[in-house]
Amino acid sequence: MKPSFDLSLYLVTDKPENYRKPLLDAVGEAVAAGVTIVQYRADSGSRRELYETALALRQRLRPLGVPLIVNDCVDLALAVDADGAHIGQNDLPAPVARRLLGAGRLLGVSVTNAAQLAATDLSVVDYLGIGPVFTTYSKRNAAPAIGVAALAELRRRTALPVVAIGGLNAARAPEVLKTGVNGIAVVSALSQVDDIAGAVRALRAARPAA
Amino acid sequence: MKPSFDLSLYLVTDKPENYRKPLLDAVGEAVAAGVTIVQYRADSGSRRELYETALALRQRLRPLGVPLIVNDCVDLALAVDADGAHIGQNDLPAPVARRLLGAGRLLGVSVTNAAQLAATDLSVVDYLGIGPVFTTYSKRNAAPAIGVAALAELRRRTALPVVAIGGLNAARAPEVLKTGVNGIAVVSALSQVDDIAGAVRALRAARPAA
Repeated sequence: MKPSFDLSLYLVTDKPENYRKPLLDAVGEAVAAGVTIVQYRADSGSRRELYETALALRQRLRPLGVPLIVNDCVDLALAVDADGAHIGQNDLPAPVARRLLGAGRLLGVSVTNAAQLAATDLSVVDYLGIGPVFTTYSKRNAAPAIGVAALAELRRRTALPVVAIGGLNAARAPEVLKTGVNGIAVVSALSQVDDIAGAVRALRAARPAA
Repeated sequence: MKPSFDLSLYLVTDKPENYRKPLLDAVGEAVAAGVTIVQYRADSGSRRELYETALALRQRLRPLGVPLIVNDCVDLALAVDADGAHIGQNDLPAPVARRLLGAGRLLGVSVTNAAQLAATDLSVVDYLGIGPVFTTYSKRNAAPAIGVAALAELRRRTALPVVAIGGLNAARAPEVLKTGVNGIAVVSALSQVDDIAGAVRALRAARPAA
């Protein structure tokens, strides 16, 4: 059975050295304070190191009931029994990733523009990551920022759950959430801070009252 | 059912730019001339590009009956329905790779010394790659060369099929094959040459008469 998921505050892991405490502790603190889903984005280290870290995250998050998504590496997602994988436009095609993941795991796909959205087989996708909304410094080779208006337009074109990503923080969250996206994804807003729990609370406070 | 495999002349793909013709044509020529198994080692390009190339290799090799092994990326091996995967000491642990691959695909593991051999769960492994026997320039971050005597010693310690790798060519093949390994793996000996078929024949001629 596919796990339920809540995109409202989606933490994407930054490089471990960008945290002021061990990665696992930083993620644990963020989840305790209200992060609803975690993506392990690993862009350095050996595959064995990524596996060990992903496994530790898996063990940390499972008792908390917060889904773990693995970025790019579908084999790593399967290896640690993650709740799903997130892929970009230069990764395995979505239908291939779905075939490997099976029906019981989540599949997220990054989309930057309408052409990519139209080219994606949405029938195999559980949610979309749309962005970068603003310029991001936490991802190598990120596409140029699309802005809030383009995000809103893409949001209107799909009925799938959407998480916005790219340069997001508490100050920018209200205008982004007004586009009707289901949540916001943050990287450096929860890594390069001393008070992670406080930063999570600020991000949650930026949501319009339900 | 697990595919049968013959390690006697094992081609590991080099960077495409090191071939004097398109990678697919080079591999096709090598296989036509007598290469018995092919490993796709992709260490640059996006995951989508690696997928496209691996898929093209798969289509090229299947009618020829020559197994395709994918290096490191177990998801890529599964995605293109390769015959197996080959992993190193810094990749997923062998039992995890085996679980993802299932029983029907081959799993090769690289081993450099006796400690690594002892630490490997050989029950899940189909063959070992032992080396680098000589200094190699075709693999980034390769371990120091172990030499022919160490290869012979490692060969004696296992009953698994073994392919020797690292700086191998037709001149060095006879002394390497005398250690009792099942075959030799080559990279630059079949990439940086004009006459690939001739190079394959020279490598095959280096085998002691059966």
